[in-house]
Order: sequence, then structure tokens, then C-alpha cells
Amino acid sequence: MRPGKAQRALRRRVMNLKREAGRNKAAEKPSVSPLMPAGGFPAVPPVQGVRYASVEAGVRYKGRPDVMLAELAPGSVISGVFTRSATRAAPVLDCEAKIGDSSETAAAIIVNAGNANAFTGTNGLDAVGAVTGAVAKAFGVPEARVFSASTGVIGEPLAHDRITAKLDELNSGLAPDRIRDAAEAIRTTDTFAKGAFSQVTMDGETITIAGIAKGSGMIAPDMATMLGFIFTDAKVAKPVLDDMVRDAADQTFNCATVDGDTSTSDTVLVAATHQMGPDIDAVDTVEAKLFSAALLDVMRELAQLIVRDGEGATKFVTVQVTGAANDVDAKTAGLAIANSPLVKTAIAGEDPNWGRIVMAVGKSGAEADRDLLTIRFGSILVAERGWVSETYKEEDGASYMRGDEIEITVDLGIGDGTATVWTCDLTHGYISINADYRS
Amino acid sequence: MRPGKAQRALRRRVMNLKREAGRNKAAEKPSVSPLMPAGGFPAVPPVQGVRYASVEAGVRYKGRPDVMLAELAPGSVISGVFTRSATRAAPVLDCEAKIGDSSETAAAIIVNAGNANAFTGTNGLDAVGAVTGAVAKAFGVPEARVFSASTGVIGEPLAHDRITAKLDELNSGLAPDRIRDAAEAIRTTDTFAKGAFSQVTMDGETITIAGIAKGSGMIAPDMATMLGFIFTDAKVAKPVLDDMVRDAADQTFNCATVDGDTSTSDTVLVAATHQMGPDIDAVDTVEAKLFSAALLDVMRELAQLIVRDGEGATKFVTVQVTGAANDVDAKTAGLAIANSPLVKTAIAGEDPNWGRIVMAVGKSGAEADRDLLTIRFGSILVAERGWVSETYKEEDGASYMRGDEIEITVDLGIGDGTATVWTCDLTHGYISINADYRS
Repeated sequence: MRPGKAQRALRRRVMNLKREAGRNKAAEKPSVSPLMPAGGFPAVPPVQGVRYASVEAGVRYKGRPDVMLAELAPGSVISGVFTRSATRAAPVLDCEAKIGDSSETAAAIIVNAGNANAFTGTNGLDAVGAVTGAVAKAFGVPEARVFSASTGVIGEPLAHDRITAKLDELNSGLAPDRIRDAAEAIRTTDTFAKGAFSQVTMDGETITIAGIAKGSGMIAPDMATMLGFIFTDAKVAKPVLDDMVRDAADQTFNCATVDGDTSTSDTVLVAATHQMGPDIDAVDTVEAKLFSAALLDVMRELAQLIVRDGEGATKFVTVQVTGAANDVDAKTAGLAIANSPLVKTAIAGEDPNWGRIVMAVGKSGAEADRDLLTIRFGSILVAERGWVSETYKEEDGASYMRGDEIEITVDLGIGDGTATVWTCDLTHGYISINADYRS
Repeated sequence: MRPGKAQRALRRRVMNLKREAGRNKAAEKPSVSPLMPAGGFPAVPPVQGVRYASVEAGVRYKGRPDVMLAELAPGSVISGVFTRSATRAAPVLDCEAKIGDSSETAAAIIVNAGNANAFTGTNGLDAVGAVTGAVAKAFGVPEARVFSASTGVIGEPLAHDRITAKLDELNSGLAPDRIRDAAEAIRTTDTFAKGAFSQVTMDGETITIAGIAKGSGMIAPDMATMLGFIFTDAKVAKPVLDDMVRDAADQTFNCATVDGDTSTSDTVLVAATHQMGPDIDAVDTVEAKLFSAALLDVMRELAQLIVRDGEGATKFVTVQVTGAANDVDAKTAGLAIANSPLVKTAIAGEDPNWGRIVMAVGKSGAEADRDLLTIRFGSILVAERGWVSETYKEEDGASYMRGDEIEITVDLGIGDGTATVWTCDLTHGYISINADYRS
């Protein structure tokens, strides 16, 4: 897309997003990311022991659902990973305090969009307490088993009474097939609702893993936040689930980047209701491996959907790094490429500018030797042994870059470390969305 | 400036820059950064023992000087700092190999624009050798005392014969007052030539420190590169100069950031010709302190000029961090703010979005406590103790953001660490320049 045309299209999208941000107007549907999967929201099957509800609470947005609740049957265990930001929001602090608990009573997860309850001083935790206390009472679960997440404006007190006023309505709306409504309710500037699922059969029973996510659309003054909620009916022991979730998050959500910025509120919760299939009590059994592979699939799909909805994104980019000294170095180099404004603008411009990839590898801090680097765009060998490949033709690279799914592979030629990360291009759309006036 | 107007202005600038990039056309002057100091290039006095020349060698650009040479009288010592990129360009590797030498014969620095001689395999060092060997012969200095730097396209062999063919012309053009011509010759997409100077009187003699720089304008496929060359006639011993230059670079060039990307070619060389003033043989004398303060001034001014010519920049931003656990943490937090796309787009949009500053501090890795943060825009107290200040009015912040010199001060409330870094806003201009087609 040439700048002039892109400009006009993006200007329209920004107008839509501005309206959607909901300054006391009825919501209008924003135009949708060009990278949204063609199938739209998948036909997610129910997860035994989980019911969902959503409601219009008017926390900030009007005329659209903005609060979702997931109810988890007795027997459920819950694991989570959270932002490492030093300025974590109140709901994150509350979740972190609760996530170590391994009791198996009924539980609930409540999420609002429109206000992140971040940087709200001591009021922040009071608001979390007001919400989780009221949910505990209304749904008959211990408060220690009520997890919450908030996404939206930061620095403004959360109108928690608007949420608690809707708990009865949420309770009466609970149903096992309303996961899509839940995904819609947690959107902020996401241009589409995000869901994924996987099923595995073990011992003649079908185990389902289903998840929803939001991110990383952002419009001033909302904070770009990644939230993910994954539900399964598998009988996974809490310590096993903790390990699997941490590992999977490192390979999925932590490998997805739009602009390298980290939210104060990033939260991923995974709940297992213990209703289907065999007991999974150790990480090294066949059952555990089957289950964790399926969990990884769901989390990877959700992470990729977030990138596909990146602000202003017009290309989905997979960066694979191989041959690094170790996996950590590979991820370091991969994220340096994926976060480089120069690499990302080159991709936006459909410019096969491999020099910027060399630059990004060089600055990453990963062990690298210029003369051992091999760079490929898709299957096209671009550079090897410190120089452009003899077989490379600029027009091949330029032609490849015109696609909207770009694969960049960099072999560092040093060891066995590998990593895959996902990003999108950096376009005028990103600037338009984020340089927009807050007020 | 509203987007529509900015858009048109920037579109024009990009058109100019495209022409300037010189695809075998006569160069036209690009429009100039709105942040260029009103006075233009300063009236830099001669430095005793230094002569400059520039020439049109046609390395890549046509119709403009693209090679400069500085000749240093016998007695000169030279210090330098270089990019820490793992994919350093050949001239950087050559300079690093030579910079430890403390001989005091005559010396030369030769710099070309248009081709960075980076990622050029083994040819790279051969080309450096061809240039430095020929300069040594033509100017009668040891090859170990010929330093070179290259900036421009990467991945293409350097046409070193075009440079060596012009050495006689350079030699006959040498003059002590041609520093501005030298500054013009090292420009790539810089919209203005950058120079600064300072003078100190000691023992009745006036010591001059004069410098030029280029960066960080970049246009595909040129690599954003920061080069700085500083000359003084002071009698500073080599080990003292080494220390001073390293310290000053950490507080100046290493505190200037446009997009967080690091070039394969960043080079700063400082030469002292030992012709004026007292001997400066130790870092802790009064003379040394006077001199190093003046050197710091010159290097700070050059670093700030580079930011003022940042691609698409419309605002010059000073980020001051105080109250950090230590100076390293302060710089970490400052650079996280200065490199955050979300902070930089907010500034472009004149949005007093302090929430994004909280986010950037949180993600930086610096020790921080949300409830101890204090944030100021200029003298306006915006947030304190984990929440927006009671006295803060959004309209005051918005009004402040409409200026083109923005100061953001963040006190972490923990210790005594401080740092100051400089950056610019992230605008449509940056995208237009960098997403431009390479070919």
C-alpha cells in the first residue's frame, strides 16, 4: 500500500477508533485489522465446569459489554503469569497475592475494560477489594478465589460500584457457551474479539482447552494491555499447571511484541476445572506432554492474534533465530529485530532492507559474529558469511516483502539456540492512533 | 501542528530527502529540521595544529562534498569511543585496533559519506587498508596514525579508489578554517551541518575545543550513524584524554537517542594537538577539570544537535531522572522513557500522557516504586505518591506540551542517582522517511 492510500485508510480507521473509545457516545464498530484471520472468532466448544457471562456496566464505555465473569466449578486450580513492570496495577498485585493458593473450591475471574485501575494510589487496592468481595458474596466463593483484571485508562479511580451493581445480572447470565461474549467484553481498542481452542482425547475422554485474549490495541489514554484467560477441563495438578503455564507463556505471550512497551496490567490466568481425562500429576508423562502441547497451541494462537491486531499493523512478521549460543540469546536477538523501529518501518515500506537486521542483531547484546550471519526472507537466501549472497536478487526480496505474512530467519552460526517471535510492521497507523490527542 | 498540516509538511520533507539521497542526481538541499538552532553553524575558531579539507569524491552522492580529511600536527594524541554493536563495520574495527597507540607523530582522520563499508565481508578491511595506506603515503604519516570512518549504505563494497583518487586535491585544500566544510561533507541525510566549540583560558593562553558531528538522519538504505570528531589544541596526555572522552561520551552521545537503534558504525574521535596551555597530565587538577568541563560542553552540544536533527522530529525532549537508586538506574529509566514509542507518540500528539511515563519507568528494570514516583512536565507537578497530583490541571499539561522544547522530570524517590537524556518525538515524518522504498 502506498503512503497516500494507506494514509487515507488509516485516517478513517483512527476516526473509527476515536468514536469507539466511547466518549459517552454509543459504540460503533471500528474497522477491523487487515490481519484478522479469515474465519473470525472460532466455534469454541464448552469447557466442562466453566460458565461465562458479560454485561454492560458502563465503567467507561457506553452501549457495549465491558465486564465479563467466568465461574469455575469446585475442584478448579488456577495458575497465572503477570507483567514484570515495577509499576504494576492494583489488580495484578491482588492476583499475585492470591495465585499461590492451591485450594480447590469454586472460583471466579472478573474482568473490566475501560479503566485499568493502575496508578490509582491506595484507592486501587480498595477498589479491587470492593469488586472481589462482592463477587465472593454474590457467587458463593471465597474472596481468595476471586481473581480480577482491569484494562483501560490509567490514573483514574475505578468506578467499582458500577461493576458490583451488575453482579446479579452477570449471575443470571452465566452459560457454558458464552465465551465469545466474554471475549467481546474485554476488548478496549481491539478491532476484533480473540479466541482459540484445542482438544485432546485421552482415556476415551475429550479434554478441551479454550482461551480468550485482548491486546494490544491502544488509544490514548488507554494503556496497551495484554490479557489472556485460558480454561480447561483437564485434571492437571496445580504445581504441574504452574510449570506448564510459565514455560508456555515464555514461548508465546512473551514472544509477541508490537512496540516493545510493557503494560502495567499484563495478566494471563489459566484455570483447570479437573473434570475430564486422566490425572496429570507430573510434567514428564505422555498425558502431560500431550496436554502441554495443546495448551501451547492455544496460547500461541492467542499471542499471534494479539500481534495481528497490533496498532496500525498491515503485515504479520515471524522472526526465527537459529544457531544462537543458547535459547536466551536467540530470543534476545529475535526481540531486538522485532522491536527495532528501523526494521519495522522497512517492513511497512516493503523494503527488503537486510542491513537493518544486521544492525538489530549487532545491538541486541546476543553473541554474534558478522561473518557467520545468514539471513533469509521466507526461503530466499539474502545474506551469508558477512555479505549479501551471490544468488540474491533485490527484486526477489522486494517481491517477497509485498506479501502480508513475512518470515525473517536469521542463523547466527554459533550454537544450537533457537527462538521464534512475532511482531507487526510500524506504520503511519501506529502514529495516528498513539499520537492522537487524549482530551 | 495538527496532523493534516504536519503531514503535508513532512511529505514535502520526504520528497526533499529522497532527492537528497542522490540517485545519480545533483544534490538539492533538503528542508531543514524545525529544531535546528536559530544561529545555524557557529563561528568555530581555528584549533592550533589542525587543518581540514573536503572534496567531492562521488562515493555515492554526486554534486556535493562527501569526503573530509583532518590533518593533525606532530605531537597530537587521539582518543575514541565506538559502537558496541557485535556487527561493527570495518572502519570501526580498524580504529579500535589503532586507538590504543600512544605515539605522537602527525596523524589524519578521513571520513566518507554515502557508503558505510559495513557488512562487506573480508572486502571491508581491505578497503579500509587501501584508504588509510594511501592517506599515509600522501600525507606523510604512519598508517597506524590514519583513522577512518564511513557512513551510508551498508552491504555494498566501498569504492575506495574514488576516495584515493582525491587525496592530492584534499592535500592542497587543507586549511585551519575549513571545519564547516568538513561538517558538510560528512552529512548523509542530516538536514543541517553540526558544529560546536568552547574556549578556556589557562596560563594566559586560549585553548580551543571544536567539534563536528553527523547523525541521526537516516533514509533507506543508509544506516543511521552517529559520528563525532572533536579537536583541541590543549596539551592533554593520552591516558587522561582517554578517561575524559569515555566519561564525557557516557554523559553526552550515549544519552542521545532517536529510536533506540544502534548503528554498526558509531564513532567518536577526539584529537589533542598539544599546542596550547599547560600540560594536563592528571584528571584531578584544576586545569584538567576546566578542560574536561569544556570538552563535556562541546560533546553535549553535538549530541543535542544530533537529536535536533532526528528523523521527523518536531519536539526536542529532555528527560531528567532523579532520586534513582544510582546513576545507572537513572539512565536506564531515562532511556526507557526516551525510547518508548508510546511516550514519543504522545509527545508528537501534544498529549500530556503521564501514564505512559509510569509505564516506561515500570518496564525499564530500574528499581522503582509506583507510590514514590513524582512526575513533572517543565515546572508543572503532574503526579506524586502514586497518583495524579491534586494541583494538576490537564489543560496546564496540554498547554505545556504545545511547546517544541519539552522537559520531563521523573523523581523515583529512592536514592541519589541522576541522569539526563535527550530524545525527540516519534512522528509520521519518521515513518515516511524510514518506510520509504529502498529501490
